[in-house]
Amino acid sequence: MKALAFDVFGTVVDWRAGIIGELEKFGKSHGLQRDWPAFADNWRVGYAPAMDRVRRGELPWTRIDDLHRAILVDLLIAAGIGAGDSDIDHLSRAWHRLDPWPDSVAGLTRLKQRYVVTTLSNGNVSLLTNMAKHAGLPWDCVISAELFCHYKPDPEAYLGCAELLDIAPAELTLVAAHPADLRAARAAGLGTAYVARPLEYGPDREPYDVASDHFDIVATDFVDLADQVGA
Amino acid sequence: MKALAFDVFGTVVDWRAGIIGELEKFGKSHGLQRDWPAFADNWRVGYAPAMDRVRRGELPWTRIDDLHRAILVDLLIAAGIGAGDSDIDHLSRAWHRLDPWPDSVAGLTRLKQRYVVTTLSNGNVSLLTNMAKHAGLPWDCVISAELFCHYKPDPEAYLGCAELLDIAPAELTLVAAHPADLRAARAAGLGTAYVARPLEYGPDREPYDVASDHFDIVATDFVDLADQVGA
Repeated sequence: MKALAFDVFGTVVDWRAGIIGELEKFGKSHGLQRDWPAFADNWRVGYAPAMDRVRRGELPWTRIDDLHRAILVDLLIAAGIGAGDSDIDHLSRAWHRLDPWPDSVAGLTRLKQRYVVTTLSNGNVSLLTNMAKHAGLPWDCVISAELFCHYKPDPEAYLGCAELLDIAPAELTLVAAHPADLRAARAAGLGTAYVARPLEYGPDREPYDVASDHFDIVATDFVDLADQVGA
Repeated sequence: MKALAFDVFGTVVDWRAGIIGELEKFGKSHGLQRDWPAFADNWRVGYAPAMDRVRRGELPWTRIDDLHRAILVDLLIAAGIGAGDSDIDHLSRAWHRLDPWPDSVAGLTRLKQRYVVTTLSNGNVSLLTNMAKHAGLPWDCVISAELFCHYKPDPEAYLGCAELLDIAPAELTLVAAHPADLRAARAAGLGTAYVARPLEYGPDREPYDVASDHFDIVATDFVDLADQVGA
């Protein structure tokens, strides 16, 4: 193993708390009360089908920023909320301003001493770059599905990341809290590290039973991951 | 101005001193004495025509790592030096292990507080990533001509960088010690910052007369650049 590529939304940053917080701020400044946690969940839920339309070729390549904005506009209309373009722009970029899980920066800082650490996210390069500045994430480089015009779980994203790092797929480990992402990485020849993020979807979810999968590493957080790989 | 994109070889790192040092090490371990400064200069001189063959379409897209290796092999043959593949691999990656100019890290660290700072180099992503780890360069992201399959000074490289950062060309400033690079950036609509690196080609060169060009910023080093842009 020479490098670790990190899924970002849910694995490195707590998108749900961050998006709820931004929606609450938006609601306050517009004098609105809504079920913001449900709004946040619906925003996130809209993301996979939007990406799948790009993956199937029904849409040309479209950045996550633009997908996020389109989903947001639909949700605002459905909720009967009117807002100006610049307010919508700002809110749609809430995904640039997410905070890391408490262990993320400490774990990445240790892992970076020994390995190359990069993003491998469906988020676009500018989103990931702005988020890293906001959250203090010490990436060695910022690699995104945008660079390959292929969203994960397309194999082009995993293989493209290894190629840019000039290493073999087996020398690259994907770190993610999402089994489907890890299974696709494994199918492309990458190593796999599952990190549990039991609060990603809120407090009421059943924990995922990782024993039903075969990942190379199973870690409780990034500090545990650093311990396990000797970083 | 929202972001600064940095040329790297010569602008951020002192390639000549670094390459001479690596060649001297190579010579010592192989019991060879040669004019290593001249060898280093010839290695560097070979790089522009090799890239131009790619730019004209005479060669398919080829990474700088591979161009550097091919030029090195020719120079070793011409000098009557035999070496094994793994020694040549190691030496050809000397470009990954270059040291920064004395002001580079301090200046970038200040500039990063206020602006996005990225590479915009003809070096490939893995080269730039390894160099940043070696030299402690605090990039926000690593952008390379490799991502566009277009070497500078092709406009695609400058415009592609702005597009990945999701900013207008005029919001991006190229920082370089090389007037031709800056002129091409300006033609693509970017801002320009010339930084003098009078020792790039060794101690005996005439200083470049910057007064004959019209760059937005002219700085003596990266700390002076930070002062001038309020970072």
